[in-house]
Amino acid sequence: MSVRAGGPPLVLTQGDPAGIGPELALRAWAGRAESGAPRFALIADPDLMRRTAQRLGLAIRVVEVASPDALDPGDDALPVIPTGHSAAVEPGLPEPASAAGTIASIDMAAQFVRDGRAAAMVTNPIAKSVLYAAGFTHPGHTEYLAELANRLWGVSPLPVMMLWSETLAVVPITIHVPLRRVPDLLTTELIVDTARIVARDMAARFGLPRPRLAFSGLNPHAGEGGALGLEDDAVIRPAVEQLRAEGLDVTGPLPADTMFHARARARYDVALCMYHDQALIPIKALAFDDGVNVTLGLPFVRTSPDHGTAFDIAGRGVARPDSLIAALRLAGRLSVAGTP
Amino acid sequence: MSVRAGGPPLVLTQGDPAGIGPELALRAWAGRAESGAPRFALIADPDLMRRTAQRLGLAIRVVEVASPDALDPGDDALPVIPTGHSAAVEPGLPEPASAAGTIASIDMAAQFVRDGRAAAMVTNPIAKSVLYAAGFTHPGHTEYLAELANRLWGVSPLPVMMLWSETLAVVPITIHVPLRRVPDLLTTELIVDTARIVARDMAARFGLPRPRLAFSGLNPHAGEGGALGLEDDAVIRPAVEQLRAEGLDVTGPLPADTMFHARARARYDVALCMYHDQALIPIKALAFDDGVNVTLGLPFVRTSPDHGTAFDIAGRGVARPDSLIAALRLAGRLSVAGTP
Repeated sequence: MSVRAGGPPLVLTQGDPAGIGPELALRAWAGRAESGAPRFALIADPDLMRRTAQRLGLAIRVVEVASPDALDPGDDALPVIPTGHSAAVEPGLPEPASAAGTIASIDMAAQFVRDGRAAAMVTNPIAKSVLYAAGFTHPGHTEYLAELANRLWGVSPLPVMMLWSETLAVVPITIHVPLRRVPDLLTTELIVDTARIVARDMAARFGLPRPRLAFSGLNPHAGEGGALGLEDDAVIRPAVEQLRAEGLDVTGPLPADTMFHARARARYDVALCMYHDQALIPIKALAFDDGVNVTLGLPFVRTSPDHGTAFDIAGRGVARPDSLIAALRLAGRLSVAGTP
Repeated sequence: MSVRAGGPPLVLTQGDPAGIGPELALRAWAGRAESGAPRFALIADPDLMRRTAQRLGLAIRVVEVASPDALDPGDDALPVIPTGHSAAVEPGLPEPASAAGTIASIDMAAQFVRDGRAAAMVTNPIAKSVLYAAGFTHPGHTEYLAELANRLWGVSPLPVMMLWSETLAVVPITIHVPLRRVPDLLTTELIVDTARIVARDMAARFGLPRPRLAFSGLNPHAGEGGALGLEDDAVIRPAVEQLRAEGLDVTGPLPADTMFHARARARYDVALCMYHDQALIPIKALAFDDGVNVTLGLPFVRTSPDHGTAFDIAGRGVARPDSLIAALRLAGRLSVAGTP
């Protein structure tokens, strides 16, 4: 699995320099021949990367480059595009002073993709609280990418988070909200809008012209005909029927507890779930190490590992690069497939 | 795994005669040598069992016995204790007229256990709607067993549903209620009361003197310090602290999405979850065919397969007996361990 032969490589962002992103980038680079991860350039503070390699005893040279398309495929050194900001932090000790470099890395990655000098972007984890302390005003990483899509592409996307693995792909329709608010936030329109984006991107990027979408119910047993809740029939079912009328291959609402075992999973390509844990529990139970976060609905390909900054283990060399490697591989695959 | 050598066998109830219970009982009986399922007697309409065996082409003889302790271990015939009610229904076509026999089977099973003539009871699935149509007034199977505990043992238990498998054991603290109602139904007292029963029965029945109990959060990321919901810190955390003060081995509230992969599961014996799907999604994703429903808190051992009547496939011979066999094996194991 690699990006288009002869085409531009991927760009990987630095993420929070005090998190596990820098060490995972080094490990993913060191293991790229074995894992089949595609070529990438890292946008980061080169000194941070040299320090991190030394601390972990990794014999990886860092070479500074100006652009991802300046890569020398024969060079074994990790190509790093400087953010122009120092990231002088200790692992596990995040500092607001590093926020400018973290954000610059994301901005530069988007610009490289916009200019056709990178095929897609893979983002290392950031810590919202650190960015907030430095004046960042966007709700999160994904919302900021939507803002960049607006600034650089002139579009106003609805970004849709999908967690993808070879085993299972899930989309939570509501995400980072208290469970108490989920029933009122869930509308037929939100379900329909989300599903249309999923269907379009599964066709255009994943090569599934008619993806099979399965919708969970909100309540136990999908409401059991109203005895255990009304939203399944009143809110979700009309969305499914509307999507079916538009020609999509849809099923549901299904009882959520019985839709994730192997025989059930064989019946659909993506499970659209009503809230965070309903989607993330099954994929993290089944594919904890190699789940990938992919943002659908953007005018460019963006993937990221399915974990956070993990400040508690940063710098110790115990973090697993599996998810970052899976994110690189998937970004390579999707950027070859094209743009919706 | 078997019931105490020389002790009484298990009793298995008929369940809804139009469901898959009768055919699963036959298959479990036929495969008991291979599966290691313990000896059992079935309480059912003997004619129903003969018809079912004939329909499925199973060469199983039915022998009528008066009591589970009248079993002849050398006889290869399925021992059936008549309910005294005919169950003349077609597979997949439930009828309220069969309700009396379905309920009699449960009543008789409890009485046999009370009298020491059966070691434990395993219940086949019933259909609440069918029983309701015949005047049954209890909310469900488990609540009815609590009523029988009161009638026959003179106690007023809080029955606690646990889904158990070799891979994972979960307890949903709220169960068959609309998701919208969960946040208000969840109280510190309910969590504490449930956990005490789990801890006691895990010690007395499962042979774990100090079981490790892990509690999920209610909200995404267990509320993320209040940013994604307040109940995790306001309701769940005080319960965990109280239980810890009582000497129990407890952790949580944990983010629900990251507590069910293999390395996380190794850190606890039972996951106590806040609502139905949070508990049932992971166990059915990981152990769909061999999950067992075991009721804790009762003065007797009761297990059941982790599926319903499955009227849609009844009589076709395609239903899998794995979960019933697992329920028989677990009932055998727990009844040997003793009573709390």
